[in-house]
Amino acid sequence: MKICRRAIFNSAHRLFRAEWSDEKNLEVFGNCSHPNYHGHNYVLEVCLEGEVDPLTGFVMDLKDLKEIIREEVTERFDHRNLNLDCDEFASVIPTTENIASVIWDKLRKRIDQQYALEVILSETENNKVIYNGR
Amino acid sequence: MKICRRAIFNSAHRLFRAEWSDEKNLEVFGNCSHPNYHGHNYVLEVCLEGEVDPLTGFVMDLKDLKEIIREEVTERFDHRNLNLDCDEFASVIPTTENIASVIWDKLRKRIDQQYALEVILSETENNKVIYNGR
Amino acid sequence: MKICRRAIFNSAHRLFRAEWSDEKNLEVFGNCSHPNYHGHNYVLEVCLEGEVDPLTGFVMDLKDLKEIIREEVTERFDHRNLNLDCDEFASVIPTTENIASVIWDKLRKRIDQQYALEVILSETENNKVIYNGR
Amino acid sequence: MKICRRAIFNSAHRLFRAEWSDEKNLEVFGNCSHPNYHGHNYVLEVCLEGEVDPLTGFVMDLKDLKEIIREEVTERFDHRNLNLDCDEFASVIPTTENIASVIWDKLRKRIDQQYALEVILSETENNKVIYNGR
Amino acid sequence: MKICRRAIFNSAHRLFRAEWSDEKNLEVFGNCSHPNYHGHNYVLEVCLEGEVDPLTGFVMDLKDLKEIIREEVTERFDHRNLNLDCDEFASVIPTTENIASVIWDKLRKRIDQQYALEVILSETENNKVIYNGR
Amino acid sequence: MKICRRAIFNSAHRLFRAEWSDEKNLEVFGNCSHPNYHGHNYVLEVCLEGEVDPLTGFVMDLKDLKEIIREEVTERFDHRNLNLDCDEFASVIPTTENIASVIWDKLRKRIDQQYALEVILSETENNKVIYNGR
Repeated sequence: MKICRRAIFNSAHRLFRAEWSDEKNLEVFGNCSHPNYHGHNYVLEVCLEGEVDPLTGFVMDLKDLKEIIREEVTERFDHRNLNLDCDEFASVIPTTENIASVIWDKLRKRIDQQYALEVILSETENNKVIYNGR
Repeated sequence: MKICRRAIFNSAHRLFRAEWSDEKNLEVFGNCSHPNYHGHNYVLEVCLEGEVDPLTGFVMDLKDLKEIIREEVTERFDHRNLNLDCDEFASVIPTTENIASVIWDKLRKRIDQQYALEVILSETENNKVIYNGR
Repeated sequence: MKICRRAIFNSAHRLFRAEWSDEKNLEVFGNCSHPNYHGHNYVLEVCLEGEVDPLTGFVMDLKDLKEIIREEVTERFDHRNLNLDCDEFASVIPTTENIASVIWDKLRKRIDQQYALEVILSETENNKVIYNGR
Repeated sequence: MKICRRAIFNSAHRLFRAEWSDEKNLEVFGNCSHPNYHGHNYVLEVCLEGEVDPLTGFVMDLKDLKEIIREEVTERFDHRNLNLDCDEFASVIPTTENIASVIWDKLRKRIDQQYALEVILSETENNKVIYNGR
Repeated sequence: MKICRRAIFNSAHRLFRAEWSDEKNLEVFGNCSHPNYHGHNYVLEVCLEGEVDPLTGFVMDLKDLKEIIREEVTERFDHRNLNLDCDEFASVIPTTENIASVIWDKLRKRIDQQYALEVILSETENNKVIYNGR
Repeated sequence: MKICRRAIFNSAHRLFRAEWSDEKNLEVFGNCSHPNYHGHNYVLEVCLEGEVDPLTGFVMDLKDLKEIIREEVTERFDHRNLNLDCDEFASVIPTTENIASVIWDKLRKRIDQQYALEVILSETENNKVIYNGR
């Protein structure tokens, strides 16, 4: 049984590599490399796979999962600039792929190993990534 | 090839264990344990995996799948109180996990074994479960 | 300038008139009259029309509007049975129309008269009502 | 007859008044005042009201409206920092209200006066504003 | 009080004027003039404004409105070619504006004059029209 | 890591087998067999699974994927009649299953074999198929 919990965070970011020229950054990252940042309403789904507890009928109490997502993701990234405010992206470009990977790593440390973990992260209604740690 | 059909049912429910105190129920189930019930617009997706019939171009005729979902799920649960009206939840707490599991069992009996079966059930826009029988 | 804030509450309800027979209730209200209640994820939009404050750029601070909606609507109706738990519906049938009207009355007392007030309430993805007090 | 065309732009912004202290900005604008910006997927709907041309069956050719929206809104604001990159917000705080007002002014100059003009701008799935110039 | 009911119909259509050349049709209607038709999932919202009946709590019984929409709109237009199968569009180009206008006329004849009537018709997630008979 | 890109195309189609009688076609395909075609807003999600490039933080540049989808799918099927205009369906009934399969084959030829490929195609909000080539 897999359970999924949705959360949203609104962040600024920019895609660029400091060691590349502006031209090279523009060529690779397009207008996502714009120097003064832009932003998104990121929609996150966190999915856990595990056994249903016969006493509660829950795979995991969603109140607990909601609180872990708040502490690890929303409090850190919501209304923040991922490049400037978040150490996690000091040397990691905040592409949707990398943000999903960082979120997965953070959640993996907090969620019991009995659960398989998957994160789904949408940057826009047209783009999303799915990551399960492999 | 996997095909999915969506259906919606609107039900009342309550999460509680009769052998637990009210305090214990409140601690575990929060305001979902409220004695007079609350309710949801449940959104169900039923997914079948199988071969495409070369004559029809269908994995399964969705008219048939729609009818099976109506008979097994919508007619029984829509505009009903899951705890009071549905024998399926006489001794099973109607968490999203357990409702999905009950629906999977009902549909599994009606859908040919050539098809793998998965159900996705959303309780709110923030919570959903995915179950494939394992 | 009109601003709108969305909120969601999950409630049980039943449509019936005590002075009518069960047959009459069934005829008028269909399966919404089912005795053991059913429920919905109600989606509420609260819209205020007023002038933009040139200092803040706000018609109204949405943090304040969000808090008023929480106190007047969500805390009272979410995870509740509208018929049994909410005095507002002691002698008022909780149709979408009447729920919207009750919410409008509650909010109107809390929101400064400089603002025109409108509420939009969806019961399902197919049904909604819009009410502005007239 | 009213016609509406949707467009999306992804921008960074920050709400603050330079002449206010950081404390005052935080008190009024909350975490929207965070110094390093955050961002949103803004969803814009542009609605025109006018007569249907009996020859074309159009109020206005949506290809033309789409192009005007692209030139006036998307090209200027998408993947930009509203505070730093857009002169329109040099002395105007980029609240949803003010962004809608700026967009309305820009479009009003480009759209024939025979059409009434309204813009609907969503910042998140919970917040939106509606502006028709009055 | 305004109530709205949603319905969906899936139709083929083509935008062109028989008395115009293919070049002129292509210039005005773009790829919507393609000779072999294309199609859409049209999303219709029908809104009625009227008084709430104090006995039922309804502006109008939505079961009745649903049935009228089925008879007048869905049965005629769903899974049909608007140009070839529907007399309503024999001399009327099936633009979203004109389809909305035709639907409004049909419904107006069936819905009591005590109710103001508005139809909202979406052709795609980016385009919609709103028509109230004026 | 899996990345997904969404695209939409609006097409007419009809489900029928030329060697079957009209009665047989109606029995199997229902009103989807209607002779003059109907249509849909098809929503396509294309998902690639592969490694994240440590230099760019991308599994694949979505600008490239977007362009491949445009060339292979949108340009061919959007505002077209799948039965009449598209050779791909000369001897293949354009069911959602078969359209997804045709799209998968087209994209598979254009997308590097290092990526696993999956397509998700929705015909309506109630029906979709998922295909990964097996």
